[in-house]
Amino acid sequence: MSAIGIVEAKDLRLTPPEGGWRLERGGTLPEIVVRYELVGTPEPSGANVVFICHALTGDAHVVGYRPGEKPGQDKASGWWEGMIGPGLGIDTDRFCVLCANILGGCAGTTGPSSVNPETGQPYASAFPEITVGDMVEVHRALVRQLGFRRIAAVVGGSFGGMQAMEWAIRHPQDMDKCVLVATAEKLNTQALAFDIVARQAIIQDPNWRHGEYYGGARPIAGLANARRLAHITYLSQSGMDRKFGRAKQAEWVERKGQDFHRQMRQDFKTYYQIESYLEYQGQKFVRRFDANSYLQITRALDAYNPEETFGSLEAAVRQIQSKLLMVSLSGDWLFPPETSAPFVRACLTEHKDISYCHLRAPAGHDAFLTHIEQLKVVIRSFLTATDVRDPATLKREEVAAFRPFVRHVPEGARVLDIGCGDGTLLKQVAVSQRAWCVGLERNLEKVVEALHAGVNVLMLDIDRHLREVPAHLFDVAIISHTIQVLNRPDEMMKQLLRVAGWALLAFPNFGYIGMRSQLFFLGRMPRTRQFPYDWYDTPNIHNCTIKDFYAFSRAFGLKATLLSCRSASLLGKILIALGLKNLGADAVIVRLTNGDQQEGSKDGL
Amino acid sequence: MSAIGIVEAKDLRLTPPEGGWRLERGGTLPEIVVRYELVGTPEPSGANVVFICHALTGDAHVVGYRPGEKPGQDKASGWWEGMIGPGLGIDTDRFCVLCANILGGCAGTTGPSSVNPETGQPYASAFPEITVGDMVEVHRALVRQLGFRRIAAVVGGSFGGMQAMEWAIRHPQDMDKCVLVATAEKLNTQALAFDIVARQAIIQDPNWRHGEYYGGARPIAGLANARRLAHITYLSQSGMDRKFGRAKQAEWVERKGQDFHRQMRQDFKTYYQIESYLEYQGQKFVRRFDANSYLQITRALDAYNPEETFGSLEAAVRQIQSKLLMVSLSGDWLFPPETSAPFVRACLTEHKDISYCHLRAPAGHDAFLTHIEQLKVVIRSFLTATDVRDPATLKREEVAAFRPFVRHVPEGARVLDIGCGDGTLLKQVAVSQRAWCVGLERNLEKVVEALHAGVNVLMLDIDRHLREVPAHLFDVAIISHTIQVLNRPDEMMKQLLRVAGWALLAFPNFGYIGMRSQLFFLGRMPRTRQFPYDWYDTPNIHNCTIKDFYAFSRAFGLKATLLSCRSASLLGKILIALGLKNLGADAVIVRLTNGDQQEGSKDGL
Repeated sequence: MSAIGIVEAKDLRLTPPEGGWRLERGGTLPEIVVRYELVGTPEPSGANVVFICHALTGDAHVVGYRPGEKPGQDKASGWWEGMIGPGLGIDTDRFCVLCANILGGCAGTTGPSSVNPETGQPYASAFPEITVGDMVEVHRALVRQLGFRRIAAVVGGSFGGMQAMEWAIRHPQDMDKCVLVATAEKLNTQALAFDIVARQAIIQDPNWRHGEYYGGARPIAGLANARRLAHITYLSQSGMDRKFGRAKQAEWVERKGQDFHRQMRQDFKTYYQIESYLEYQGQKFVRRFDANSYLQITRALDAYNPEETFGSLEAAVRQIQSKLLMVSLSGDWLFPPETSAPFVRACLTEHKDISYCHLRAPAGHDAFLTHIEQLKVVIRSFLTATDVRDPATLKREEVAAFRPFVRHVPEGARVLDIGCGDGTLLKQVAVSQRAWCVGLERNLEKVVEALHAGVNVLMLDIDRHLREVPAHLFDVAIISHTIQVLNRPDEMMKQLLRVAGWALLAFPNFGYIGMRSQLFFLGRMPRTRQFPYDWYDTPNIHNCTIKDFYAFSRAFGLKATLLSCRSASLLGKILIALGLKNLGADAVIVRLTNGDQQEGSKDGL
Repeated sequence: MSAIGIVEAKDLRLTPPEGGWRLERGGTLPEIVVRYELVGTPEPSGANVVFICHALTGDAHVVGYRPGEKPGQDKASGWWEGMIGPGLGIDTDRFCVLCANILGGCAGTTGPSSVNPETGQPYASAFPEITVGDMVEVHRALVRQLGFRRIAAVVGGSFGGMQAMEWAIRHPQDMDKCVLVATAEKLNTQALAFDIVARQAIIQDPNWRHGEYYGGARPIAGLANARRLAHITYLSQSGMDRKFGRAKQAEWVERKGQDFHRQMRQDFKTYYQIESYLEYQGQKFVRRFDANSYLQITRALDAYNPEETFGSLEAAVRQIQSKLLMVSLSGDWLFPPETSAPFVRACLTEHKDISYCHLRAPAGHDAFLTHIEQLKVVIRSFLTATDVRDPATLKREEVAAFRPFVRHVPEGARVLDIGCGDGTLLKQVAVSQRAWCVGLERNLEKVVEALHAGVNVLMLDIDRHLREVPAHLFDVAIISHTIQVLNRPDEMMKQLLRVAGWALLAFPNFGYIGMRSQLFFLGRMPRTRQFPYDWYDTPNIHNCTIKDFYAFSRAFGLKATLLSCRSASLLGKILIALGLKNLGADAVIVRLTNGDQQEGSKDGL
């Protein structure tokens, strides 16, 4: 059920630009009609409009019922039900949603099966080669013709993500935000290869006849096989194993006679459920999709590559002004999470406002349509975020706690917070020091909070992914009470001074008298307020004393400067006052810079 | 170049069993001819013969030159060059190699394109449905007819691995050893799905004509597309990215004229190298392979599933007598490493002698043919192993060191050694206690040594995979100086008593006086002989004292019994003599059992 009700599709004949519709690859079109659906009431400027770019074989019907369907009885037929609606990921209480069928498709917008007004016949093989850029220009012309000058966001998943990306690149001022889900700036080689095989399946179909099949038999066998192949790539291996395994269609088979079984054997059919599922997907698809559209659109998909167009990905993203959110899915092997990295990295290099989330989605690529619980929360949080530099949204109660840190950050600096939690510290840095801030955090709940705080946050595993952050991007790297939980603190510290000019570290001091005494007098691994864990399940796996840290810094040619130390106990405070910091401090803040001079290395004990 | 020289294929008409050749699925064949190649001189009994089962589209020419090729000039044309030869993985100085084309193929052994002697025409669609079992029976009949009663080993990769597995299951006494590479006891759902699409590509080809195409045009377009699809699954995603990326065929393209480019656009061809590579693979394949064979063999592949045949995988492997080695490849997504687990687990459950290796192979499934450096060493080590119970092969110098451990293991026990290194301890246990021994080890070099020692070794990451070992398989689990390097020692200890009746642990004691003093007096993380690492790169991330260990055992309802403690220092020895073990011992051996009574928990300090 959808709270949206019936949504009627509308067709709009776009006013052609001067000189007519010239496409990127040199072709022309005499006219372009766009089919779109609009949910909610747009502000005249478009400031509350979210444009959804649909995926390869989607259409404009993103949410709600089609005319003729029965709200309350039927299941709503939009392809992104659950994502869009009151209080959902794209909150229709706040936003108005616009979705249009893409150029070259077969669901209302001009495509190969449309009638060419100049000939009165379908374009068929005469339909010109199109690109993602052409699709974006058509979307944009629609938005302009509806009177919108700057919209709230463009959101796209999979191939729709490429359209959203291209839009943000081409027309930076068109939108405030841009959301890219389960996508990348180009297909990887394997995905290209699958498309190549799929197109072969279509053009080998004797009914394809070089695209001139309208009015005759359609190449549905080839198209169905192309779809079956594509469908495999939309599900993960484990998802398929769970859903179908090697289960057979026993019941369905029993009803059939000997002739049926002979035919099955002769056609080399199996009785596996996966086969009938793929059959079903293929048959369902050919009823609604056109082979020429499939060929045209997958070619545009395969060719998309702003890196090639601009010479480098950095050059491509340089003009982007919107805030960006990129989301990858763990089980997605069509756009595997690692293929998000180049775009995210390029945006960071150009100091763009980009956030990145990595969601657990064992079902595979299609999970962005079918398993959207987390995705919904992430998108909602990003679209409804507060302004990161708005002091009114600071958490007052935590300002004091972070001041010892924040005061060391220079005005206007570029700051990386490693293990940024909910972004409170970063937000404070952004507000008070007017810094460009990026946080790294691996806990999704924290990431969601950070997104909502308006902070740029990258959901990464620090141990594995910090090395992928480009060098010298930041002035300061902050790492607070995290160094001791890492697998390789030494690697981390080298990384810190690779990505930033200097680093600000806080860590617990294993040399604190309370720690030493427990091991020495009790013969037990210490447990304190700083170290509340048992030896066998503690996250603190690489502990050090202040002296150890100095020794480490010296050995690696780094300079450690003790900025402050603290103790929760009176004894600790006294020892610190006496200059016995390694004995008295239970936690410290240190500045780490390149250079081998040591300060304060003579701190007692 | 191959040291093997020219190998001539031979054809052998098999003597049919009484009643003729009846196939598993009910079909019959009037005759079966097998084409095979034999390298080296077999012992009359077959004791030095290694039978190689080829993969889906392979043939009998596994190594060396074909007649007409020029040794020393041409590249040798065997499909497993580098694996077989003097001093190689399958050492021809020691073994004689036999390989035969499979039933249903198209390279000499009877298949759909063979002439049916009863009709004088090719079988075509009349060729009966075949199974992996049928292929094995044909291989076996060949071996018998050559006079061999029991051969040294059956080795197979991919689909060949399934044949080898089936052979070991059906005829346990036929072989001493069995090697299964990049395979599993069944295809996963995704692999099934790819085969379904590939077969569709063939049967949709108008030239297929239900298999009756001999003498006319062959369904090469469909077969080529099926091959292109299969080829994608043989390479890893990253391997394809590295090898082809999105590179284009620039040079090749420049030479062509406008007509060519128009044709490319009309056929929706890309200029990507990956497309011409797949084209090439497809074209090369249709020259040597028959579409009906492809349909028949992939159907047999898809149907293979001993779990289904026997009711359970345990029942299937129960009769196996050969020593088994299973090898998976990291980049293989057709038979991903995790799909090896069910077979390995079933063999363990049935207390079979099985070893398992997981090799780094970024190139993908095909790496078992193309990147064989590690595989070669592993197979060689397994095939030339010493007898695990042969006392003559014990490393004498280490016998004394392990005695404190070994003497606690009961006679005839089933022993698991977690972190078994090169298998020396296990071998000693096997020799002196006549135990059934299995080791876990993640370091490949050690695994290779353990294989050569004749020990059953599973190459696994303990933290991640111990939980997959079936429960109650072992009497004793041994874990020596490993507990402190694990991410979750508590989980490990629970696992120990899940897989074994009791456990024998050795670990370093963090309560040792030398450790305590360094932290207490020097304010530094301790470094000793037991703990020679710096705080930031130590593998010892979860340290404990003897007292901590007792407390842990108590808390979890386990019983810890101190069996022995040792100290390298005189002071330590004195403290131990005084009963101050937690202060004096630098390492201990403990027995861990279920039950909450504690012994020795009052050990001083």
